This record gives sequence, structure tokens and C-alpha cells, in this order.
Amino acid sequence: MADPLRAPQQDRSRATRQKLLEASVESLAQVGYAATTVAVVAARAGVSRGAAQHHFPTRADLFEAAVEYMTEVRLAEIRTQAAALPVGAGRTEAIVSMLADVYTGPLFRAALHLWVAASTEEPLRRQIVRLEAHVGRQAHRALLEVLEVSEKTPGVRETVQGVLDMARGLGLADLLTDDGKRRRGIVRQWSKILDQALAS
Amino acid sequence: MADPLRAPQQDRSRATRQKLLEASVESLAQVGYAATTVAVVAARAGVSRGAAQHHFPTRADLFEAAVEYMTEVRLAEIRTQAAALPVGAGRTEAIVSMLADVYTGPLFRAALHLWVAASTEEPLRRQIVRLEAHVGRQAHRALLEVLEVSEKTPGVRETVQGVLDMARGLGLADLLTDDGKRRRGIVRQWSKILDQALAS
Repeated sequence: MADPLRAPQQDRSRATRQKLLEASVESLAQVGYAATTVAVVAARAGVSRGAAQHHFPTRADLFEAAVEYMTEVRLAEIRTQAAALPVGAGRTEAIVSMLADVYTGPLFRAALHLWVAASTEEPLRRQIVRLEAHVGRQAHRALLEVLEVSEKTPGVRETVQGVLDMARGLGLADLLTDDGKRRRGIVRQWSKILDQALAS
Repeated sequence: MADPLRAPQQDRSRATRQKLLEASVESLAQVGYAATTVAVVAARAGVSRGAAQHHFPTRADLFEAAVEYMTEVRLAEIRTQAAALPVGAGRTEAIVSMLADVYTGPLFRAALHLWVAASTEEPLRRQIVRLEAHVGRQAHRALLEVLEVSEKTPGVRETVQGVLDMARGLGLADLLTDDGKRRRGIVRQWSKILDQALAS
């Protein structure tokens, strides 16, 4: 049985950890990898430096946890949005639009900073590759499911993978400027193309 | 008339500048933005630190020139490859494959490091946005030309833009792992989709 005196302390500790992880994503998205230190994240989270270092003794520990956290949040976001999709006409456009949203938010922006940093930092690279493969597989499976298509049909796998890559490219295009207007036109047109491609 | 005694010195100076710019792209692609300093680039280029600082007094000067240089090289690459495309069957796949190559090389990798750095560094961001708009327009125009389609046809603009975004996404997917096999499957399938979409 849980110790009733320890439970509130554990809750507080979990809440602190959560605040630090949220702050680390915000910090990555806004000031980038080099400027995101445990001290900066602690200040942003309103947590004492000591408490932050209790959770994350080193910067590597913080990023390791942040990558896991971002993976979970991105998958949860995909699941939530997938459940709210309309049926019938407009469904495909809603799906492609949802994907574009997932890949243009602050979470993707934070992930971009981490990916680029990881490309020249070995332990981080290995960890991200493992988790990205997981996110990629889950996103791919979710996309097949909401589009109601099967990979057994030749070409479907590559069609759907290409859509995910397009969404990633749209995310990148949104990094330095607000690309919303151009993006909406592409989402509309490629939804039509996708419907055609999956029907044939 | 050119001074015959000055000409060789000017040539040497131009060659040194060129070596420094090539080395800065290599350095960005291999060790990233934070580690790419004028001193590191000079050492990589085999140029004295003094000579490097004569060309690029500050790191900002180096990146400003590197961004211009990368823009020129990327456009020249697109033009060269566009001129070597086959005609008839297989042309569209050769085009999409060429695009995927342009967006997965060391030049794109170097550009990714710069873009992410620029997202949190104002003067660099403005400069890159201006030059990327130029590269984007030229790449878009070249793609319309080699695909032999016109933007006057409704939907063509967005179809072609989406393919460029897909290529950018493929470049990103190749940053942390060798994504060649998956990419070839997507290029093949998306070439078919593109042919269908542009024909209808």
C-alpha cells in the first residue's frame, strides 16, 4: 500500500518534472539547443536550480528525458486529432491538414533543434534515431488507419510515407517564416491527389 | 585595362575565398553551426588565420558569404542536373530522384544547420529568408520547366510545391540515418502519382 504521507511529495515531484520538461520544449523551440541549459530551463519553469538538478543532474539527462517526453506528446497529439476527424467528404483534407499542424507546432520546432544538434552529437543521435523510428511507425500506422487503406495494396506504403515526408517538409518551411497561406493551398491540392492515388 | 601584376594576386585571393567558402559548408555539414568558427574553417581550408580574417573579419561575415555561396551552388546544381534529364518514359522519376538528391547532399545538410541556427538569430534569419525565397522560386520554375507544365493550369502550382516540400522532408529524414532505400521507394511511387496528377 502507498504511504499516505509520501504520496503528496511524489505528486509534487512528478509535477516539477513535468514543468521542467514542458519548459525544455519551449526553450528549445524559442532559443535553440545551445542556449537550453538546465539552469535556463529551471528559471523558465519557476523551479529552483537545486530541484532541477535533482531531476536532471546533467544536460544530457535533461535532453534524454525531453526526447522521450516529446515522443509521447507527439503521439498523443496524433491520436487525439485522429479521433476528432470528420467522416465523408473533407475527411482526407482534414487528415492532411492535421498532419501539417502536427509538424508545424512548437513541438516539431523543438524536435528540429534537437535533430540538428544530434547530427553532430553521438549519444543523442542514437537515442533520437530509436525514438523517431517509433514515432514514424506509429504515425504511419495511424495514417493508414484514418485513411482506411491497407499496406497490402501495392504502392500504398510509399504513398503514405511520402505524405509524412511532405508534412515534415512543410514544418521545415515554416521554421523561418509564417508559411500558413502557402501550406493551406498545398494541403488542399494534395488531399485531392491523395484521394485519387489511393482510389486507383 | 587590368594591371598584369595585380591579376595573379587577385586570382589567388579569389581562390582563397573559394576554399574558405567550401570549407565552411563542409564544416557546417560535419560539425554544425556552433563549432564552425573562422579559425576552424581556416584550418580546414589550409589557409592562415590572418588570410581568413582578411576575407571574413567576423563569423557573421563568413556566414553571410556562405549563405550566398550555398544559394549559388544549389541553383547551379539544379540547372546542371535538369539539363541531363532523360526524355520519354522515366523522365518524371528522374526529375523526382534528382530533387531528392539535391535535398539530401552535404549542401542541404549544411543549410539545415544554418536554418535552425537562424531561427533564433535575427540578422541571419532575415538574410536566409531572402535567399531561400530566391532559391525556392528558381527551383519551382525549373521544376515546372522540366515537367513541361504551366502554372496557368489550376492546381499545378500547389502540386509542384508539394513535391518540393516532400523532397525537403526526405532531406530531413536523411539527417540522422541513411534513408536511401526507403527514399527510392517513395521517389518511384510519387513519380507515378505526379504523372497522374499532372495529366488529369
